[in-house]
Amino acid sequence: MREFGDIESVGREMHDFARELWPLPRSISGEGLRTTLRAIGERLPSFDLVEVASGSRALDWIVPDEWWVREAWIETPDGRRICDFATCNLHLVGYSTGVDAVLSREQLEAHLHSLPAQPDAIPYVTSYYERRWGFCLSHRERESLPPGQYRVHIDAGHGPGSISYGECLIPGESEAEVLLSTYCCHPSMANNELSGPVLLAQLGAWIAALPRRRLSWRLLFVPEMIGSAAWLERNRARAQAHVVAGFNLSCVGDERAWGYLPSRAGNTLADRVARHVLGHLAPGFRSWRWIDRGSDESHYCAPGIDLPVASVFRSKYGSYPEYHTSLDDLEHVVTPRGLGESFAAFQRIVEALEADVVPKTLVLGEPQLGRRGLYPSLSMKGSTAGVRPMLDLLSEADGARSLLEIADRIGRPVWQLAPCLDPLRAHGLLSVEELHR
Amino acid sequence: MREFGDIESVGREMHDFARELWPLPRSISGEGLRTTLRAIGERLPSFDLVEVASGSRALDWIVPDEWWVREAWIETPDGRRICDFATCNLHLVGYSTGVDAVLSREQLEAHLHSLPAQPDAIPYVTSYYERRWGFCLSHRERESLPPGQYRVHIDAGHGPGSISYGECLIPGESEAEVLLSTYCCHPSMANNELSGPVLLAQLGAWIAALPRRRLSWRLLFVPEMIGSAAWLERNRARAQAHVVAGFNLSCVGDERAWGYLPSRAGNTLADRVARHVLGHLAPGFRSWRWIDRGSDESHYCAPGIDLPVASVFRSKYGSYPEYHTSLDDLEHVVTPRGLGESFAAFQRIVEALEADVVPKTLVLGEPQLGRRGLYPSLSMKGSTAGVRPMLDLLSEADGARSLLEIADRIGRPVWQLAPCLDPLRAHGLLSVEELHR
Amino acid sequence: MREFGDIESVGREMHDFARELWPLPRSISGEGLRTTLRAIGERLPSFDLVEVASGSRALDWIVPDEWWVREAWIETPDGRRICDFATCNLHLVGYSTGVDAVLSREQLEAHLHSLPAQPDAIPYVTSYYERRWGFCLSHRERESLPPGQYRVHIDAGHGPGSISYGECLIPGESEAEVLLSTYCCHPSMANNELSGPVLLAQLGAWIAALPRRRLSWRLLFVPEMIGSAAWLERNRARAQAHVVAGFNLSCVGDERAWGYLPSRAGNTLADRVARHVLGHLAPGFRSWRWIDRGSDESHYCAPGIDLPVASVFRSKYGSYPEYHTSLDDLEHVVTPRGLGESFAAFQRIVEALEADVVPKTLVLGEPQLGRRGLYPSLSMKGSTAGVRPMLDLLSEADGARSLLEIADRIGRPVWQLAPCLDPLRAHGLLSVEELHR
Repeated sequence: MREFGDIESVGREMHDFARELWPLPRSISGEGLRTTLRAIGERLPSFDLVEVASGSRALDWIVPDEWWVREAWIETPDGRRICDFATCNLHLVGYSTGVDAVLSREQLEAHLHSLPAQPDAIPYVTSYYERRWGFCLSHRERESLPPGQYRVHIDAGHGPGSISYGECLIPGESEAEVLLSTYCCHPSMANNELSGPVLLAQLGAWIAALPRRRLSWRLLFVPEMIGSAAWLERNRARAQAHVVAGFNLSCVGDERAWGYLPSRAGNTLADRVARHVLGHLAPGFRSWRWIDRGSDESHYCAPGIDLPVASVFRSKYGSYPEYHTSLDDLEHVVTPRGLGESFAAFQRIVEALEADVVPKTLVLGEPQLGRRGLYPSLSMKGSTAGVRPMLDLLSEADGARSLLEIADRIGRPVWQLAPCLDPLRAHGLLSVEELHR
Repeated sequence: MREFGDIESVGREMHDFARELWPLPRSISGEGLRTTLRAIGERLPSFDLVEVASGSRALDWIVPDEWWVREAWIETPDGRRICDFATCNLHLVGYSTGVDAVLSREQLEAHLHSLPAQPDAIPYVTSYYERRWGFCLSHRERESLPPGQYRVHIDAGHGPGSISYGECLIPGESEAEVLLSTYCCHPSMANNELSGPVLLAQLGAWIAALPRRRLSWRLLFVPEMIGSAAWLERNRARAQAHVVAGFNLSCVGDERAWGYLPSRAGNTLADRVARHVLGHLAPGFRSWRWIDRGSDESHYCAPGIDLPVASVFRSKYGSYPEYHTSLDDLEHVVTPRGLGESFAAFQRIVEALEADVVPKTLVLGEPQLGRRGLYPSLSMKGSTAGVRPMLDLLSEADGARSLLEIADRIGRPVWQLAPCLDPLRAHGLLSVEELHR
Repeated sequence: MREFGDIESVGREMHDFARELWPLPRSISGEGLRTTLRAIGERLPSFDLVEVASGSRALDWIVPDEWWVREAWIETPDGRRICDFATCNLHLVGYSTGVDAVLSREQLEAHLHSLPAQPDAIPYVTSYYERRWGFCLSHRERESLPPGQYRVHIDAGHGPGSISYGECLIPGESEAEVLLSTYCCHPSMANNELSGPVLLAQLGAWIAALPRRRLSWRLLFVPEMIGSAAWLERNRARAQAHVVAGFNLSCVGDERAWGYLPSRAGNTLADRVARHVLGHLAPGFRSWRWIDRGSDESHYCAPGIDLPVASVFRSKYGSYPEYHTSLDDLEHVVTPRGLGESFAAFQRIVEALEADVVPKTLVLGEPQLGRRGLYPSLSMKGSTAGVRPMLDLLSEADGARSLLEIADRIGRPVWQLAPCLDPLRAHGLLSVEELHR
C-alpha cells in the first residue's frame, strides 16, 4: 500500500492527469467526453465504454441528441476574434446550435453571458434541453465591446447519436458491491469537475492492486444526471440487490475544506464510513444536509431507488467563489496536495469498508492476555495503555456489531483496530464473520 | 382566506368581542357562563349549549351545585361601600356562600384576600368545592381599612342546577377530527381567560368558511377541569377513535412571548404541528414541559384517555405577573395585535393539519422537470434556487412520510410546500394519499 | 433509617474500620486477604468465605498459586535496613519470589521501582503471573542509595493453595437480586482500595436492617479480576437469571469528585439509577465512558455475560495523582466525610432500586383530589405548588413506566415521589405492581 506520507507524489500524478484532460471539450455527449473516458479507461484494469442512443428512456429522462462542435468565435467590429472555443471551451454555451450571422452590438447582447460580480470570470453555461446559442465571456471583456457589427460563427450541431459513460468492475470475494460514481461532462474546470474523475481513476488502480478484496468495487464515470439515469435504467435491480455503500466523488481537489453530504436515508453504511473517516482525519469537517445535494445522488437516493450513496467533498459545488467559472482552475484551486489528501481519505474509506467484518470474542469475560504474552507481566500505573485498543475491541466484540460500529463506540479509527484482528484470531480469542446485511 | 397582513384588523374584532364579554360574571356554572356561551355560539355555524346536572359523575369528579350571585359588597365603618361585585366581579371569592353580618375589622380579616407583593392588584380566588365566603381586594386598600364594625353583604347561594358547556362541530370530508378546546369560567380577566374563547370563536368562523376541509373540527368552550371532565364522560370513546390532534387554547392574547406545551405523549401530530408552526413563525419560542401544564390537558392527556392535545401560548398562565389578578386586563396585557398574531398562528396550524397528506413521487429518480417547463432551460450557477422546494419535496415524497414530516426534513414551512402539490399532480409526477393514522 | 445529616458520624465509623484493615498485607491470595475478609464478614448478617484452589479455571483465567511473605527488606552498604515490608507492605512487589543475596548497586537497579515524577511516592507494583522479585521505594530514596554491596532478603514463596473471596446474600421478597461487588486485594492504599470494602460492609449492615426489602442483595468481596472470574465461573447462569442491577464499588472515599462509569450496555437499570441519583445529589458529576473502565466490570459486562453492572465513584482510579502509590492514604485522600457522603449516595441508590415499582392510576382523567382532602380547597395563584409531585406522579402512572422512569420524566428525585405512593393507594387512586423485567 502506498504510504500516506506520499501525498504530494500521488497528488502530482493526479494533477498531471488532470492537465492532460483539461483541454478536451467535454459535454454530456460527443467526442470530448469519449476521449476523456478512454484516457481514464487506460488506467483501470477493465473498462466498458457504454453508448446510450439518443431518444432512449433513462428513468424519467430522455437521452438527447448528440452534440458536436468544430469551432466557435465572435469577430468584433475591429476584426478581433474573441470568445474563441479553441482557446477556452467555456466560451461557448454548452449544446449551442450552429449559427453564422452578423449582429449589432445590441442584438448580440441577448446571447452573451457574464458575471457582473466576478468581472474576470468566464461563466459555465449550458442549455441541454432547449435549443439556443450563446457565448460566455468575462464581464470586463463584455463591457469593453464597442458598438458596431459582430460576426458570430458557431460550427456546431445536434443529431441522433448517443451519450457515453464508462464502467469498471473490480471484483472481490463477495458479490456485495461498493459504487463509486463521478461525472465527466464538465469542460475545462478543475475542482468541479476534473478532480472527481482523476481521483476515481487513481483510486480504482489502487483498489485493483490490493492483495485481497472482500468487496467488489464498481466505478462509474458518467455525464451528470443523464448518465446516472441511463445507468440506473439498465442496472437498478442489480444495484439494489448488491450495493452496500456508495459515494459520489465530486469537488475533491482543493485544500480549503472537508465536507460530507449524507445519503437521503442519512445513516447508511456509506454515511457511517464517511463520518467515521472524516471524524478522525478532518475533525470539524462540515456536515451538509441532503437538501444541499446537487448531483447524481439525486437519482441514486431517490424514492424507490434508495441506494446508500453519500458524498465526501473538499470545497463543495456551489460553496466556493470559483465554482462554475473559468476561475476553477488547476493553478489556484486544485493542487497536487489537495488531490493527494483526498486520495488518502478515500483510501481510508476503502479500508474501513474492507475491514468492516463482525468480530466475535470466543472467551467469556476479559481474557487473560498475560498468559499469552499479549499483556505486560509487570503491573503498575499506566502499564496497560498500550493494550487498551485490543482489550476494548475484545470487550465490544459480541458478534452483534461490525468493526466500524465497534470503532465508533470505542472512539478509535477502524484502521487502528483492524491490525489487532489477526493476532487475536491466532490466539483463538476471536472469530471473524462476514457482515450479513 | 384572510390576509395575514390584516392582523390588526382581525385582532381588533376579537378585542371588541372580549370587551363585550368582559363584565359578565362567569364561573364554572350559572348565568354569567351561559350568557358568555350564547354570545360565542352566535358567531359559529352550529352550537350546542349542553347542561350537565349537579351531582352527575364527570370522570372522577362530581358536578357541583350551581351558584348564583345577586350582589356582594362590604360597608366600612364610615359608610363607604367597597369590594362591590357590581364594580368588579373579582371582588367576590368564586362560589362564596351568602352572608349578611356585621364584623369587627379583626373578624373580617380571615375573609379577605390580597397580594402583599402586588399591592394594587385584586387577586382571583375561588372555592368551588368547599363552602366559605370571602372578598378580594388590593393590598393597598386592605391596609387602609380602619378599625371598627363592617357590614358584609353577599346575596348569593348554591342549589341543584347544572354546569354548562358549548360544543360546535364543523364537519369535513373525513371523520378524523381536530379538537380545539378553551375555557370560559374565568370572570373579568383578559389573557387568562377571555383570549382563548374569543380566539376560538374567531377561528371557528374562519374554519367554517374554508372552501374545503379534509378534517372535521370540534370546538369546545368549557368551564375548566369540570367541563372537560363532563365532556369526556360522555364522549371519550368517540374522541379516542377520531381525534387526530387537539389544542387547548389559553393565554393567547398578549404580545410578549410565544410558547408551546406538549401533550403528555410528547410527539403526537399536535406536538409536531405546534413545533413546526412556531419554529417558522416564532423561532426561539419557549418550550414548556408537560409538568408545567395547568389546565384541561390534564384530563385530555391522562393515562387511559391519551388524546393528542398540546397547547400554544403567548404568555403562559402562571408565568406573567398579571396572571390571576385584576391587572390581567384588555388595556395593558391583551392587545388587538396580540390576539391578531395568535389568530394568524392558529390559521397556520389549521393549514398545516389540513395539508398533511402523504405525497408520493410517481417517477423513479429525479424527474426531468425541464421538459415539463418546470425548470429553467438555461443552466448556470444559482439558476435552480427557485425550484428547490419542488425538487426537495419530490425527493422526499416516498409515500412513507406526510407533508409535515417532509417539510420538517427539508426545513421549509409546510405552507411553502402545499402549493407545489397541485402542479406536480397535474404533470403526473405525484399522487396524494390520505394519511392513515 | 440513618439520617443523612449523620454523614460525618457514619463516615467516622467507616474510616475507623479502614484504619483497622490498613496494615494487613493483602494480595489476591494469602492470609492478609483472609483476615480482611473475616473482619468484614463479622459486620454482616451472613458471610461465606470461599476458597478457590490454585489451578482452577476461572472463565479464561487460571487461579495462580497462593503467595506468602514472612519478611522482606534490603540492607544498604552502611548497614541500614530499607524497603522493609514490615513498615510498609507496598515496598515489596506483589507476588515476589523469595531471595537472599548480595548485589551491587548496579545489579540491584533492575529490581527497583520508583516514580521520578512523584519522587516521594512508593509505587504499587505487582507481578501475579510471572515470577520475579522487586522492591518499590520513593524516587528520592532510590537516588540517595550509595554504591556498594546490598543484601536483599525476601522470605516469601508460592505454592498450591487458593484464592479467597467473601459472599453475603441479604434476601428480600423477590428473587430479583442486586449485585454489589468490591475488591480487597490491594495492600495499604485508601481510596483504591479500602474505601470500597469498608463502604460495602457498612451498606450491607444497613440493608440487612431495613424493615422491608423487595429485592435481594448480593455482596461480593473479591480479589480483583481473578476473584470475579472465579465467582462467575460458578455463578454465571444464576446471576444472569436474577441480577437486575449491579455496582462495582471502588474509589468511594475522597471528597474531590463524583463520577459514573456505565455498564457496557449503557442503559441498564443500574445505569439509570446511577444517573438519577447522581443527577440529583451531585449535578455536574463526571460521566466516564465504558472504555475508561478498569476493574471487575470488565468481566461482569463482557459479551456473553452481560450483567447490568455500573460504577459510581468519587475520584476514579487512574484519574487522581495519588492513585496506586503510598500517597493514597487515610489522612490526605480518604476522609470520614468522603466515606460518609458516598454511603449516603449508595443509600439513595438502594432506595431508588427498592422503590422502583410500577404505579398505575386507577381513575380516568386528573382525579378530584380536593374532595379527598389532598388538595387545597381555596384556589389562588401558587396554591397548588405543594401537590404538584402527587399530581405529576398520577399523570404519568400509566402502568407502563416504573417509578424511576416517572421520576426522570417529572424531573424529581424518586425519593420525593416514593412517599406519595401509600396515601394515593389508601384513597384508591393508585395500584402498585412489581416490575416485570
